[in-house]
Amino acid sequence: MRPSKRPNDAMRDVTMDTGVSRHAEGSCLVRFGNTEVLCMASLEERVPPFLKNTGKGWVTAEYGMLPRATGDRMRREAAQGKQSGRTQEIQRLIGRSLRSIVDLQALGERQITVDCDVLQADGGTRTAAITGGFVALSECLKWMEERSMVKRHDVLLGHVAAVSCGIYKNEPVLDLDYAEDSTAETDANFVMTGAGGIVEIQGTAEGAPFSEDEFLNLLKLARKGIGELVETQRQVLGEH
Amino acid sequence: MRPSKRPNDAMRDVTMDTGVSRHAEGSCLVRFGNTEVLCMASLEERVPPFLKNTGKGWVTAEYGMLPRATGDRMRREAAQGKQSGRTQEIQRLIGRSLRSIVDLQALGERQITVDCDVLQADGGTRTAAITGGFVALSECLKWMEERSMVKRHDVLLGHVAAVSCGIYKNEPVLDLDYAEDSTAETDANFVMTGAGGIVEIQGTAEGAPFSEDEFLNLLKLARKGIGELVETQRQVLGEH
Amino acid sequence: MRPSKRPNDAMRDVTMDTGVSRHAEGSCLVRFGNTEVLCMASLEERVPPFLKNTGKGWVTAEYGMLPRATGDRMRREAAQGKQSGRTQEIQRLIGRSLRSIVDLQALGERQITVDCDVLQADGGTRTAAITGGFVALSECLKWMEERSMVKRHDVLLGHVAAVSCGIYKNEPVLDLDYAEDSTAETDANFVMTGAGGIVEIQGTAEGAPFSEDEFLNLLKLARKGIGELVETQRQVLGEH
Amino acid sequence: MRPSKRPNDAMRDVTMDTGVSRHAEGSCLVRFGNTEVLCMASLEERVPPFLKNTGKGWVTAEYGMLPRATGDRMRREAAQGKQSGRTQEIQRLIGRSLRSIVDLQALGERQITVDCDVLQADGGTRTAAITGGFVALSECLKWMEERSMVKRHDVLLGHVAAVSCGIYKNEPVLDLDYAEDSTAETDANFVMTGAGGIVEIQGTAEGAPFSEDEFLNLLKLARKGIGELVETQRQVLGEH
Amino acid sequence: MRPSKRPNDAMRDVTMDTGVSRHAEGSCLVRFGNTEVLCMASLEERVPPFLKNTGKGWVTAEYGMLPRATGDRMRREAAQGKQSGRTQEIQRLIGRSLRSIVDLQALGERQITVDCDVLQADGGTRTAAITGGFVALSECLKWMEERSMVKRHDVLLGHVAAVSCGIYKNEPVLDLDYAEDSTAETDANFVMTGAGGIVEIQGTAEGAPFSEDEFLNLLKLARKGIGELVETQRQVLGEH
Amino acid sequence: MRPSKRPNDAMRDVTMDTGVSRHAEGSCLVRFGNTEVLCMASLEERVPPFLKNTGKGWVTAEYGMLPRATGDRMRREAAQGKQSGRTQEIQRLIGRSLRSIVDLQALGERQITVDCDVLQADGGTRTAAITGGFVALSECLKWMEERSMVKRHDVLLGHVAAVSCGIYKNEPVLDLDYAEDSTAETDANFVMTGAGGIVEIQGTAEGAPFSEDEFLNLLKLARKGIGELVETQRQVLGEH
Repeated sequence: MRPSKRPNDAMRDVTMDTGVSRHAEGSCLVRFGNTEVLCMASLEERVPPFLKNTGKGWVTAEYGMLPRATGDRMRREAAQGKQSGRTQEIQRLIGRSLRSIVDLQALGERQITVDCDVLQADGGTRTAAITGGFVALSECLKWMEERSMVKRHDVLLGHVAAVSCGIYKNEPVLDLDYAEDSTAETDANFVMTGAGGIVEIQGTAEGAPFSEDEFLNLLKLARKGIGELVETQRQVLGEH
Repeated sequence: MRPSKRPNDAMRDVTMDTGVSRHAEGSCLVRFGNTEVLCMASLEERVPPFLKNTGKGWVTAEYGMLPRATGDRMRREAAQGKQSGRTQEIQRLIGRSLRSIVDLQALGERQITVDCDVLQADGGTRTAAITGGFVALSECLKWMEERSMVKRHDVLLGHVAAVSCGIYKNEPVLDLDYAEDSTAETDANFVMTGAGGIVEIQGTAEGAPFSEDEFLNLLKLARKGIGELVETQRQVLGEH
Repeated sequence: MRPSKRPNDAMRDVTMDTGVSRHAEGSCLVRFGNTEVLCMASLEERVPPFLKNTGKGWVTAEYGMLPRATGDRMRREAAQGKQSGRTQEIQRLIGRSLRSIVDLQALGERQITVDCDVLQADGGTRTAAITGGFVALSECLKWMEERSMVKRHDVLLGHVAAVSCGIYKNEPVLDLDYAEDSTAETDANFVMTGAGGIVEIQGTAEGAPFSEDEFLNLLKLARKGIGELVETQRQVLGEH
Repeated sequence: MRPSKRPNDAMRDVTMDTGVSRHAEGSCLVRFGNTEVLCMASLEERVPPFLKNTGKGWVTAEYGMLPRATGDRMRREAAQGKQSGRTQEIQRLIGRSLRSIVDLQALGERQITVDCDVLQADGGTRTAAITGGFVALSECLKWMEERSMVKRHDVLLGHVAAVSCGIYKNEPVLDLDYAEDSTAETDANFVMTGAGGIVEIQGTAEGAPFSEDEFLNLLKLARKGIGELVETQRQVLGEH
Repeated sequence: MRPSKRPNDAMRDVTMDTGVSRHAEGSCLVRFGNTEVLCMASLEERVPPFLKNTGKGWVTAEYGMLPRATGDRMRREAAQGKQSGRTQEIQRLIGRSLRSIVDLQALGERQITVDCDVLQADGGTRTAAITGGFVALSECLKWMEERSMVKRHDVLLGHVAAVSCGIYKNEPVLDLDYAEDSTAETDANFVMTGAGGIVEIQGTAEGAPFSEDEFLNLLKLARKGIGELVETQRQVLGEH
Repeated sequence: MRPSKRPNDAMRDVTMDTGVSRHAEGSCLVRFGNTEVLCMASLEERVPPFLKNTGKGWVTAEYGMLPRATGDRMRREAAQGKQSGRTQEIQRLIGRSLRSIVDLQALGERQITVDCDVLQADGGTRTAAITGGFVALSECLKWMEERSMVKRHDVLLGHVAAVSCGIYKNEPVLDLDYAEDSTAETDANFVMTGAGGIVEIQGTAEGAPFSEDEFLNLLKLARKGIGELVETQRQVLGEH
């Protein structure tokens, strides 16, 4: 039995609120249970040097955690003078995931930066960030469409969402919370498109190595969870 | 006429929500109009080196802004590898202000760190942070009292709150929002106790120097605003 | 009785020597008693990016302390790899104070940087730096006038000087030295123009909060002290 | 056809030379074709703070590239003052992979650091580093066994090796070199034990998302490659 | 008697292998006994800002040590976030030494960076780096000559090599290894041209000061050693 | 003819003022012509970790330049976040030079840090710093002797001073000023004891290599100059 009493294939309650920032061109406060991530998409009329004069744009992400988002207070990265390896790894993953469903040519020479800041952490912050980051990015493209800068569906090739799965007490379970995550034998993050294509897989044996069969079970759970997340994205974005 | 149509001596709508974090020992989401600051107080059983074996504790603060809390996205301080001079100046001010109403001896050899993170900025982030930081600190002391660690009112010597005032189009006005702050001739921040004592004054002529009379007008406005803020603190903390 | 036997409203001996650097366009070694600050103004034909092509110039300041300017040796900031929050706070204050009496348009697209380095500290280093920094800046503008680059009095709108006051053993005193500063209940820095306008006020309760009356007493002392400092500036700059 | 003319399921020539350092307790120069990584294991009688007095040891890894290991010279990370996100991501992966086959209790309170420095890069540097890093670690444990510090096979629970696979021109191929890696549609790194258990999977769609079937084909290739790598490890370590 | 049994005026075995990098325009793996330094010269079509539009090029060097090049593992400079004073001192010396025999005008507006990375250290790493760095630089110029970019002998004004000498147990000895270096009373590094001119001398009394006569004995030994090194450079570069 | 009209073997006017700091245990403001260096020796009752419990002390030095000590303003190292390679090289040299005449055992487990800060630069700042640093160190030892902590002459084994020489317009000259230093063909720094022993030699060919004879001429000039400097040290320290 999971600590949260959820069935093995059940997501936590998921909400995605848009329009939560007066300033950002697109924003979304995403919750996976008690995990809360504030995602804000900022449009800038500039691109990184390697894209200058190519006609192509860029989508990138940054990730942060408030110091007391976690059970024990962590040191503030700005005060330490550097981002941890974990932070950099996560923000690279978010950026790659979002770019996987964007046509950078159709975006034009502009950059959209999606800031994902964890207000409260209870496991799955990176998957919530990708899922909510997609909504913030979509809102930003709506904002641009309203100003006739782009057609949103020329730029967006589909939906993208993410979920973590793991083997907890020998059973494959969907959407690990912190209590599960910290004791799971295996932990895997899946990023998939609305059409079911795989964008990124990261699986790690925390204890004993895992087998191909175990891994396929996790993938099956992920597919179910991501299907539900994309459905919520569609509702929130008014796509029905 | 102020851009917000407020009378010269009127505060913006102020709210202070407590219990907004599952993890922090004390927390408060404070809003001065569209300015939103999340304050979380963290208790740690350690003190800075200069207080070891003195029997005295410490209260300190850290301040940050989400990159898109502002109209234009700012660079993330963690990515830049250092905190700006402005950030350091503000967090030093918050810490001094909170310590002004704390008996460090009564706290015992423990540290409370109050993190003030600006989710949305519209002027007055430092004054909102001090005002909400006091509430988070009080909540943390309640949490400690419930566990018989301290008596809250042995540690807290009073209330502390802060507000900014300025001379806008030649008139003294209370609680500047961003539209006013960015064009005010003079800008002053006042930190005062519930009993009316002055803890900190910072007044700056942005344009022409100001006179003693002008300054005394600002101080009078501040006294009114801080009185209202302390009243709200009392309600929120259930002190009636 | 003050440790230095000075009357409550007496400044320490103040000297300002100009022409102390062969290289700087303007320089001043200022002494407030045993506090010694070397101020050097450097002219550069460039401006910060935000002023490019605006026709306006910039005046800025940097502040430093030799490691053994103080009673105990402090770590060298260059070796630590960063400037402390205190250093940044002070250099921002010096810069704002000097800009308050400069017409940046009349200066033209050039930058003057005033370096204030404390050779010996005995309280009041920031107020000495502002007062001596003004002299170095004036000397730099003389140098420019001699080369027909600007008219000095088109650029300089007045004089600016600063002094600290405090409540020491329940009495308001002028120009705190280190022995007073480290035990004063309240400490306030005042920056004022030669014409008596207030440029900056920073008052802090180190112990108990202070009252409006106490504050007004400090302001009165400051006005006296700054009057004397401006008189010395005038003599040194040959303005009689 | 692959640029290197290799069949789709063929590894590059792999060599692992041990004893290449006079100083390190264990060392291995591993080559996957033109990719060369020098792996050195250093034993230290200390552990990170979180393991003090637990009786458990630690295995960690650091990764670096010589500036001209690549086609174009890269900036030296030591000169830039920080390790890139990519470097940190890779060294965290190497460390996790090596710890997956180590009994930290049996190691005792000691740390082994495995430095993996890329002398020449032609794709697959992280997989070569894990594979060669295992050999250096084993050599270090042999060194310790000779001094009766541990029994090598109490500490080592098995073998670990890694390989990258990808979809190149629509075909799944084993052990990508740089020419393939830079144009592959999908790129996946697999870390597996000698017994066939999966330790880590990282799959990324560089272009279009990939399907479950495609992924399973890559996993099958990886299993073949890693089998060959473990066989080479056994020969080099004299385990037949 | 020297620990290595060498006569006082004997170099260690010296080898210089060229063509050891697929990527670098010039490369040399130089060995002075057990000291091994990998030197790679990289050509870039850009110059430092102070040389823009002067028609002159630049030759510079960077130096690094693998963490376990030494008897005890040293911390990785990239992880520490800065290069040590020793590293900077050495790379400045290598750069100056190489520029002493280069006509920067004849090179044209291009930069050659010579990276010298110590794979294994046993004393004399800086002198090996200069000696091998010259070979890598020469190979790079050959590469340029083959592409008709420059005439190699227009750019190279001669040969340059370096060796350390010292007073070990009261006797002047040539080419100190680590066992000698760490206990020598005096340690001196000499950089000389193939024609016998002195480019750089650095002599340091580790214990008691040394006399002019002692110093001249060291210089004499250096002249012999550098003569042999230049002879090896000539052979390796095919100049006979 | 030298720009300063000095004969080739003449030093600039040299002065050394002691007692220039109220705080430092020993201090000296040294001038070599227009070069001014403020040297302050600080005694601390602690040693670096590698000397703990050895009974031996340590002498070290730090070097800095005020930003406008030079003809053009240089960036402040504290603001840049690191010390340049040049700064580190110089402070290592000063430290080694001072330690050459100190018996660290006789000093006991204490550290003396000699800060050398250049107030004005006109060539020869490092040699002035060593020469004046010795005086500050001696003053510090006097201070300790007065408190019966050590016998000054047990700790100090002799005098140490330094001077630069160079080949300027084909002639060997003593004590280069900036005008000479910036165009000299060869530049050499010599550190010697009062007894004439050589502590450190650093000679660099800025243009063409130099010969042994040229070098010996420079050494002869250095011996003369250092003799004069040590005589001045003796007078200033009251040793006649």
